[in-house]
Amino acid sequence: MIKAISLRPIGYVVKGIPKKSKNNKISKYKYESSIKIYNEYIAGLEGLNEYSHIIIVYYLHLAEFKRLKGRPWGRKDMPEVGIFATRAPHRPNSIGVTVCELLEVMPPYIRVRGLDAWDNTPIIDIKPYDYYDIVKNPRVPSWFIKYWSEKSKERNYRGIAPWLGP
Amino acid sequence: MIKAISLRPIGYVVKGIPKKSKNNKISKYKYESSIKIYNEYIAGLEGLNEYSHIIIVYYLHLAEFKRLKGRPWGRKDMPEVGIFATRAPHRPNSIGVTVCELLEVMPPYIRVRGLDAWDNTPIIDIKPYDYYDIVKNPRVPSWFIKYWSEKSKERNYRGIAPWLGP
Repeated sequence: MIKAISLRPIGYVVKGIPKKSKNNKISKYKYESSIKIYNEYIAGLEGLNEYSHIIIVYYLHLAEFKRLKGRPWGRKDMPEVGIFATRAPHRPNSIGVTVCELLEVMPPYIRVRGLDAWDNTPIIDIKPYDYYDIVKNPRVPSWFIKYWSEKSKERNYRGIAPWLGP
Repeated sequence: MIKAISLRPIGYVVKGIPKKSKNNKISKYKYESSIKIYNEYIAGLEGLNEYSHIIIVYYLHLAEFKRLKGRPWGRKDMPEVGIFATRAPHRPNSIGVTVCELLEVMPPYIRVRGLDAWDNTPIIDIKPYDYYDIVKNPRVPSWFIKYWSEKSKERNYRGIAPWLGP
């Protein structure tokens, strides 16, 4: 059985979310980020612009894994759950997967909306978002719905699930 | 800048898609797979069962990356596009990301429907599928719509986008 997996970044975030975003009014859901793809991989971007949304797989290089359980967003009003039941960055393998609106492909740059990553975050993969990624009415925990409702004002920027309401 | 990323599997596929699935009538979209999570990570599964769907991040350990362009599914009737505009397994970093229906969490096992992976595939991460993963009407290329239409009979097993039609 495979014990270790080695990956090489295909690019990195050149303009990411400001680290102080928690303290000001920047919404990670509408923030426009730029990614730079290394020259050797640029040919792989052909045709990507035919999609409205992409899935970005990235390495949360500053996240530290500490515990297998925690409260989502570190909030005391949230229940303690397993790390695999959350999207928290500090995971056993600190891989992020985010659905983003694709704004522009202008090699070696890609501009997206909604990427929750800081400057210099290594990009591992880019995948097109297609119909198989859509679940119409997924069941989610009540604590997630609470968060979703709170964010209703700032989230409708990526074409995400507007019919689900606040 | 980070040059290499090292990951350790959190588990592996114990019952995956048969390798001969292309030659028989098994549909990867409805196939039920089992994953075994290593003991040290089991505590992280708590609360996962409150979700109907999960995102499985895995390492396509048998995929070989060869070219940055190719025809989707290796089909001659598909246009040649960049690897990042497809979900093909043979990528610069052979990471798979699949939305699956969660059937059962019975530690150390998880049963899912719709995982497109063979036996012994290393699992890198498990993430809950939530509302931020839903795009209502994503734009996709015409070649994808062609494939989608062909698969209309076998795909409606995971709660995926039934309203999109054949």
